[in-house]
Amino acid sequence: MDGLDRRTGAGGAAVTLVGLGDIRTAADRIAGQVVRTPLLPCPWADERRPLWLKPENLQPTGSFKMRGALNALGALDAGVRAHGVLTHSSGNHGRALAWAARVYGVPAVVVMPDTSPAVKIEGIRVLGAEIVIVPPAEREARVAVLAAERGLAVVPPFEHSDVIAGQGTIGLEILADLPPAGTVLVPVGGGGLVSGVAVALKALSPGVRVIGVEPELAGDLAEGFAKGRRVVWDPVLTYRTVADGVRLPAVGELNWRHIERYVDDVVTVSEQGILDAMSRLVWGSRIVAEPSGAVAVAAYTERPDVTTGPTVAVVTGGNVDPALLVRVLSA
Amino acid sequence: MDGLDRRTGAGGAAVTLVGLGDIRTAADRIAGQVVRTPLLPCPWADERRPLWLKPENLQPTGSFKMRGALNALGALDAGVRAHGVLTHSSGNHGRALAWAARVYGVPAVVVMPDTSPAVKIEGIRVLGAEIVIVPPAEREARVAVLAAERGLAVVPPFEHSDVIAGQGTIGLEILADLPPAGTVLVPVGGGGLVSGVAVALKALSPGVRVIGVEPELAGDLAEGFAKGRRVVWDPVLTYRTVADGVRLPAVGELNWRHIERYVDDVVTVSEQGILDAMSRLVWGSRIVAEPSGAVAVAAYTERPDVTTGPTVAVVTGGNVDPALLVRVLSA
Repeated sequence: MDGLDRRTGAGGAAVTLVGLGDIRTAADRIAGQVVRTPLLPCPWADERRPLWLKPENLQPTGSFKMRGALNALGALDAGVRAHGVLTHSSGNHGRALAWAARVYGVPAVVVMPDTSPAVKIEGIRVLGAEIVIVPPAEREARVAVLAAERGLAVVPPFEHSDVIAGQGTIGLEILADLPPAGTVLVPVGGGGLVSGVAVALKALSPGVRVIGVEPELAGDLAEGFAKGRRVVWDPVLTYRTVADGVRLPAVGELNWRHIERYVDDVVTVSEQGILDAMSRLVWGSRIVAEPSGAVAVAAYTERPDVTTGPTVAVVTGGNVDPALLVRVLSA
Repeated sequence: MDGLDRRTGAGGAAVTLVGLGDIRTAADRIAGQVVRTPLLPCPWADERRPLWLKPENLQPTGSFKMRGALNALGALDAGVRAHGVLTHSSGNHGRALAWAARVYGVPAVVVMPDTSPAVKIEGIRVLGAEIVIVPPAEREARVAVLAAERGLAVVPPFEHSDVIAGQGTIGLEILADLPPAGTVLVPVGGGGLVSGVAVALKALSPGVRVIGVEPELAGDLAEGFAKGRRVVWDPVLTYRTVADGVRLPAVGELNWRHIERYVDDVVTVSEQGILDAMSRLVWGSRIVAEPSGAVAVAAYTERPDVTTGPTVAVVTGGNVDPALLVRVLSA
């Protein structure tokens, strides 16, 4: 990596943050492998706070996760990569890794929690990946066992420099399309996306405000950000939210280092606000978002106090349970 | 206009066709006023016939019609434009004209058939245009009266060189993003879109096949194309299709001249095929299409015999009646 920024973490260990150069390298690496999503203006928004969407639900796997997965696989030594790759995921990263593995012609194994919607499991299966279903709390342990037994390269969903750099390419694209962006709203689960986007935006346009958004029911980062330290919630709590893509009990340690340095604020949104945002995106902007994909749009509506100037909401994904979408649209 | 191509029509009158230069001028004129839509690859498509979508439903007014309306208003003499503009429309062109009029700060009047879905009427009203509701058969007559009485410039929905040139910008963008395109599937109502797209594609890449697509229940052009002459259906027939955006009883005379010269074939699709395509676009590609917006995708599925090589389906619009979308997604 270039643009090195070594900091001393709480435990005294040196932490290397992702830099703008890493993100530019990632952008070159994944160019042509992902959709260059446009910014979509929202005529339904408040004219005093114009809103654009960054519709990453339009990526072929239905989420932004392709960016990080493709960058991580591209950065691996070819000999290592050939043995295959492995991850755990609530769905979208697993699907992205399966896609990236197919692009590179290598095997993929995805460990998934038994709470995953069927649509997400099926989306991975059809890409040819091997799927291992486990209780949520056992995901990381199972990954460690599989990696050791079968010599697979682990590509974690968010706590990984190459994944963060890949997601950061969204920040480059936002600024290319809307140089005067005032506020960028970014959903937060494990923190890979908000870390990368914040690095890119702050490096190129320090005046842009980067706001992380979580469901209230999975507000571990909002609590931690207010306290100035990473906090971990019980998964029993975070699993209450309908937004299955951001039920992580905490952001990653590496992600926290980026967030505390580059993110301006973290806010939370209600469950009803998330469902209302899904509805608004269908009727007002003609795109389908999954609940976690709609949290940034929910923040635009519920937290006008944190949006200033031209605002961008990242719509992270669209792999929604069919019954839920029909219920939301029938309301 | 440059690139003039004067032909003698059936009645002996000289007909000036739109040329590539007109379309390039249009592209310059509307740049920054419309979303530069990407091509979206479809993982759900047949691997032997890879499919990309051109998602014009993502335009702020929900359809491609903005392109033609903005180009036509931009081409008007400023003094003429200032008096205001007028059109008839089944909805999407009216909405686009209302949008374009607001961009240029001039009044707009839209004559709409009383069969228009409420969502389309409301979409125009909120943009500040004056709306006049009439029976479908009286639309053109009412436009003529209003134009004479109030000195408004008429911008028709499809039979107009500047409108055709504006829609043709979609052809330029398809080739910029997918140079080896083999087949491009284009929905046909009045023929403005297919005329412009065909001119652009054939000028720049003569080997690309351009296929017009209609519902079977509004297959006037398919019949006429087979017979080698423009035919007109009774509106009682064309109004049977669920695809309210393409219920026109015929393509325009000017459009026919472009179609007979530049379009390779015209095919029809079933009503169920259209509804199935709407469903597939939501679950497979996470975008919302109205019925007329889905007919090209329906042709991809129902008429594999006419798609060769990399295929592009233009998704023309997404202003769907909410009850219909819920019904389609619940099926």
